[in-house]
Amino acid sequence: MHNNETDDFVLRDENQLSVDLIEAQYQLRANRGGIEGKSLLILLSGIELAGKGEAVQQLREWVDPRYLIVKADVPHLLTAEQPSWQPYANFIPKQGQMTLLFGNWYSDALTTALHISAPISEAQFQSYVDGMRAFEQDLCANHVHVIKIWIDLSWKALQKRLDKLDPSEQKWQQLHGLDWRSKAQYDNLQKIRQHFTDDWIVIDGENGTMRDQRFAQHILQALKTPLAEIMPAPITGHWQKAKIPEVLLKVPDDALDKTDYKAQLQELTKKVARAMRKDNRNIVIVFEGMDAAGKGGAIKRIVKKLDPREYEIHTIAAPEPHELSRPYLWRFWTKIPTHGGITIFDRSWYGRVLVERLEGFAKPHEWKRAYGEINRFEQNLTRHNTVLIKFWLAIDKDEQEKRFIARENTPHKRFKITDEDWRNRQKWEQYLQAAADMFAHTDTHAAPWHIVATNDKYIARLTILQKILDQLKAAQ
Amino acid sequence: MHNNETDDFVLRDENQLSVDLIEAQYQLRANRGGIEGKSLLILLSGIELAGKGEAVQQLREWVDPRYLIVKADVPHLLTAEQPSWQPYANFIPKQGQMTLLFGNWYSDALTTALHISAPISEAQFQSYVDGMRAFEQDLCANHVHVIKIWIDLSWKALQKRLDKLDPSEQKWQQLHGLDWRSKAQYDNLQKIRQHFTDDWIVIDGENGTMRDQRFAQHILQALKTPLAEIMPAPITGHWQKAKIPEVLLKVPDDALDKTDYKAQLQELTKKVARAMRKDNRNIVIVFEGMDAAGKGGAIKRIVKKLDPREYEIHTIAAPEPHELSRPYLWRFWTKIPTHGGITIFDRSWYGRVLVERLEGFAKPHEWKRAYGEINRFEQNLTRHNTVLIKFWLAIDKDEQEKRFIARENTPHKRFKITDEDWRNRQKWEQYLQAAADMFAHTDTHAAPWHIVATNDKYIARLTILQKILDQLKAAQ
Repeated sequence: MHNNETDDFVLRDENQLSVDLIEAQYQLRANRGGIEGKSLLILLSGIELAGKGEAVQQLREWVDPRYLIVKADVPHLLTAEQPSWQPYANFIPKQGQMTLLFGNWYSDALTTALHISAPISEAQFQSYVDGMRAFEQDLCANHVHVIKIWIDLSWKALQKRLDKLDPSEQKWQQLHGLDWRSKAQYDNLQKIRQHFTDDWIVIDGENGTMRDQRFAQHILQALKTPLAEIMPAPITGHWQKAKIPEVLLKVPDDALDKTDYKAQLQELTKKVARAMRKDNRNIVIVFEGMDAAGKGGAIKRIVKKLDPREYEIHTIAAPEPHELSRPYLWRFWTKIPTHGGITIFDRSWYGRVLVERLEGFAKPHEWKRAYGEINRFEQNLTRHNTVLIKFWLAIDKDEQEKRFIARENTPHKRFKITDEDWRNRQKWEQYLQAAADMFAHTDTHAAPWHIVATNDKYIARLTILQKILDQLKAAQ
Repeated sequence: MHNNETDDFVLRDENQLSVDLIEAQYQLRANRGGIEGKSLLILLSGIELAGKGEAVQQLREWVDPRYLIVKADVPHLLTAEQPSWQPYANFIPKQGQMTLLFGNWYSDALTTALHISAPISEAQFQSYVDGMRAFEQDLCANHVHVIKIWIDLSWKALQKRLDKLDPSEQKWQQLHGLDWRSKAQYDNLQKIRQHFTDDWIVIDGENGTMRDQRFAQHILQALKTPLAEIMPAPITGHWQKAKIPEVLLKVPDDALDKTDYKAQLQELTKKVARAMRKDNRNIVIVFEGMDAAGKGGAIKRIVKKLDPREYEIHTIAAPEPHELSRPYLWRFWTKIPTHGGITIFDRSWYGRVLVERLEGFAKPHEWKRAYGEINRFEQNLTRHNTVLIKFWLAIDKDEQEKRFIARENTPHKRFKITDEDWRNRQKWEQYLQAAADMFAHTDTHAAPWHIVATNDKYIARLTILQKILDQLKAAQ
């Protein structure tokens, strides 16, 4: 914990402070993409009129303003509809940048606590805060250094400032629709914010010069903090390989007659369309599996009786440069559905623990940590009005080869097969192990894995449709 | 004009059609970044139940679905608040991609015409359509090939489909809240859409097989159309250099006393803050000018009495890869303010006709065309609740050198000066010419240029503040 009382604070020469800040910014940029590469995310909240705006204005004059992004969003109420961080996902800075958020998940929590008619219980509020901290922890682990600064003001000082306020500037006094003349309300706000500010930097806003210097000095210190100091400790000890499920080692070969298939398919596709339409939650369906296991064909059947306006399909390929400079989950944060939408992922965030693990794009400490990060991400979804249905399509190595060759011999399917597919095939056993480890760590109650044998495409497709129906029903 | 009656249509072998589509997609991707690089944007509208969804579903089966993005947004009413394309700016595909928009600016126009209580006059509707076509023309010129497809259905066929509709699928029948059983309303819709579909591909939706094939074949044709065929003709003839304004050649040296400056600055910064707060429109302020002309200092004074939550500053540097693969204006479309926001651009879209022109990043036919594109973009803003205030800061070449040297000798300003600044200085006369050409082509009534002499920073800052006040007042 940092605060005014405990740190040894010295007012510095402004020009020198400015030089140091700018140099630290340049170092931040120079580190981009390397092992020390990070961005800085500053969450700023505090009492109205405490001088948050002034502190930021002063900071902007000291730093190179090109590499400081300031975002101020309208407050959102925390709802069951979306994770608290979702409105801010687009603002997560890329490596080399620093971004300051006036509006942030904590100010939203504060607004929610102060404004909704039914009071939030202590337990509920604590669970909000726990979730936010877990999210920030995951940001830090993924090279986004988060610092949180509360600018405080005593009741007496606040009243004095209100007395002196120019009438033209009074709009800020009411930013959150609060009455800053009410002592009861001030006390209530102070009480609530104590529930989350114990890991914040708290700065007293009464003396402007001191406030602005403290603020800037804390940011300078954060800029200069090596990544190693903020990263969570890596998962150590012997890595326990999971046992590979039998179905992956010996994929069943049962087959279904085409006539039976057609009749059942007709029935099931209708049922699935109806069930998805009736469901008001967001529906996220994830497909993973070996190449040629039939992901595309399965997706086609899921959407068969839907209108293309009712769903989105994201085919996940290698990340682009602007995606690589942010946490690997970032590009999914911005693709998850809202307002009861249906989104299908043809490959997904699980790439982190599959291809990225096997190709070395994620280092061991990164992919080992990813299981927990993914579980928290998925829990954020399933706790916020989302049904998450995950499929692993299991295919036999021989059957895969047959399909590869068939694809190569079919003109309109040839595009589906590349040299990379043949190369991946050489890592068959490693992929099986990675899949097994993934099941062991991410098969959760709220978001279970469905392993589907696909040597027979017909059975596979019907199974997938039935499992979607079941999970939609079970999760209601 | 294309339609069923005039083209010689042949039903093709599905597999061959699929191969051709996939190969055309791969060619599209192979061309990325080159002179033939383009993307394909498909605007799709039509009568309900005519089979738009089915046609897209079928298309998705024939193409490589990874490179087809389908977006369906809720309809927006056209308002005075934003240009009709703004809700879709994020969906403009990058080179190598094709994107299909179910909801688009035309369906919005149609919805608006059918739903708002006060009828839209023919002239008003025509002006909407003219604006949309101009925007599409600019997209095409910037490597986004736009095609528009209307899937039609006769009154009789529509009624037959309504009769046969499964009750669970009836939601689409009411997508635009229209009653498709009303002949009067059907006729009205057909009448309105005639105002914009004369440059559309019109496909009859009655026969599903024919419809899907026509649809796919048109898209195939568009994919294969060389860029040269859709590009507007380049501006030819002798390029008339504009006369360089006297103030740029001999920048006035009048100076102001610091005491006077401070008093006036205090007064003006307050007035500017008050005027911007009172103004409910979006305010966009653009700064261009030679290096060290004082853009940063001027911006600092504009926002002096504002809270950082009230404005955004965008410092425009070289575009990122994902920006380069879209029209050069794209990264500005997504940064313009809405809901009465204040946005300041430290350099802007004018880079197209300044640095990109002089460094060869934009070819002559590109920067020559850009003036018109920029004027249309700015008109889109100023006609939609936005005040656009543009400044060119003019500085003497000797004064610039003095400031460069002073910066190099001031530790906390050293970061502002790089080798590139010295290099740009060698192109001084070329920059003056480019600025002069820019004034000649983009100094419009709605968005005039303010050329401000900045040899004396004090006078410059006061002048800028005063000009903002004046333009806010004049444009009310």
